[in-house]
Amino acid sequence: MAGTDSSLTDPGQDSGPAPAIILVRPQLSENIGMCCRAMLNCGLSDLRLVVPKQGWPTAKGRAAASGADLVVDNARIFESTEQAIADLTLVYATTARARDSSHRAQVPKEAATELRLASSKGNKTGIIFGPEAKGLSNDDVVLADSILAVPLNPAFKSLNLAQAVFCISYEWYQAGVDADNWPKSATTKPKELAAKKDLVHMFEHLETELIECGFLNPPEKRPAMIQNIRTMFQRAELTDQEVRTMRGIISGLTRVHERKL
Amino acid sequence: MAGTDSSLTDPGQDSGPAPAIILVRPQLSENIGMCCRAMLNCGLSDLRLVVPKQGWPTAKGRAAASGADLVVDNARIFESTEQAIADLTLVYATTARARDSSHRAQVPKEAATELRLASSKGNKTGIIFGPEAKGLSNDDVVLADSILAVPLNPAFKSLNLAQAVFCISYEWYQAGVDADNWPKSATTKPKELAAKKDLVHMFEHLETELIECGFLNPPEKRPAMIQNIRTMFQRAELTDQEVRTMRGIISGLTRVHERKL
Repeated sequence: MAGTDSSLTDPGQDSGPAPAIILVRPQLSENIGMCCRAMLNCGLSDLRLVVPKQGWPTAKGRAAASGADLVVDNARIFESTEQAIADLTLVYATTARARDSSHRAQVPKEAATELRLASSKGNKTGIIFGPEAKGLSNDDVVLADSILAVPLNPAFKSLNLAQAVFCISYEWYQAGVDADNWPKSATTKPKELAAKKDLVHMFEHLETELIECGFLNPPEKRPAMIQNIRTMFQRAELTDQEVRTMRGIISGLTRVHERKL
Repeated sequence: MAGTDSSLTDPGQDSGPAPAIILVRPQLSENIGMCCRAMLNCGLSDLRLVVPKQGWPTAKGRAAASGADLVVDNARIFESTEQAIADLTLVYATTARARDSSHRAQVPKEAATELRLASSKGNKTGIIFGPEAKGLSNDDVVLADSILAVPLNPAFKSLNLAQAVFCISYEWYQAGVDADNWPKSATTKPKELAAKKDLVHMFEHLETELIECGFLNPPEKRPAMIQNIRTMFQRAELTDQEVRTMRGIISGLTRVHERKL
């Protein structure tokens, strides 16, 4: 999905700092780069890397970040998970495995709300992700306040690292989006809906022509047919311009054979 | 996040078939592979590729799918977006750009609920994604019923293709997990939506006649005029019966003056 504009407000501004993303022993720097991009997509920029296998930053990683240089360049490297989360007060550990654990487990949507709440009270928060193949060790999981698990197809639930980071970051961002800033089944562009009188004139124009050509026969079925046609066009919520277009189409079509002669 | 178990129930079973994912002119087969994985993570398996640049399947693509062979092997290739969506009745087009369009725009969470509802009534649904760098063309967007836009950081909103596919697929899956997301009372009345191929035939019928009568002049303005007309009818969410009615109206109107002579 291409394209960037700046017409929307960033919802992340009012609720304190965004959570840190902590990647523990990530194996491929390309994956780290994709995480950078996913984070910045969702307004996150505090990336912490625990012993990244291929080092950081790398050329491959930067390419995979697709312009999220802010995150690439600000990433910090730590020697242990403990050090990476030292300054945080609320930490989630992500896992896809059922664990013999007495941790609270949450889904991303719940966690996002809790993270927003904690941030707004001045807490510094973070989410820990394990290495690509193995996930977090139990030693890392016990450092966290809660477990975060994404509900997924039980037959195929192993998420790509960047997808996991995106999923949590996305929910965090959505939790901050002011409902009023986004359309709820609205059109992308404010519409000048047609005045009903113009719509009725359009209907009458169409129906006159349809009677003329015999489409609205037999006459006893005419009222129901007209209702169906009007309903269909009502649903389209036509603009003023579109009503004029429809008038032009009706006039045009009825002229087809006139012009041929 | 590693690990797979089967302790969760698949929420996708009770609500009809999962949506198809349509990738239009994807450039890199590695991205297609990552989309396969993201889809299967969320219980989706109907992948349709419109002219994939590097062909499909490829070794790189299969590696990136990380075991989602079911999706890799079942993917179908089409020569046009029209052909790829021919059997579908409810189609979303994803875009990150603010468009001068009168399409309905929805966020993924809303769209997921609507997709579930449509599926549960037997409709076949799908979501179209454009090429990595450019996104969907306007010609492809007008084939859809609604636009789907992910609320993201306005300063950096260009999503990786697989992330975009994951995001929508994830919300679709969650809408099945979370019963609260289901509408308490169905506001939409059950409809037998027209298959896209029939809608496209209707458009072609109308446009042929409008060219004939000179309405679509001058020719250089024709593509934009056709897009506006198609968008207007897409918004009406025509049923199968209504498409037949419209075909009858077009034929009828073009016959008006024929009959008079």
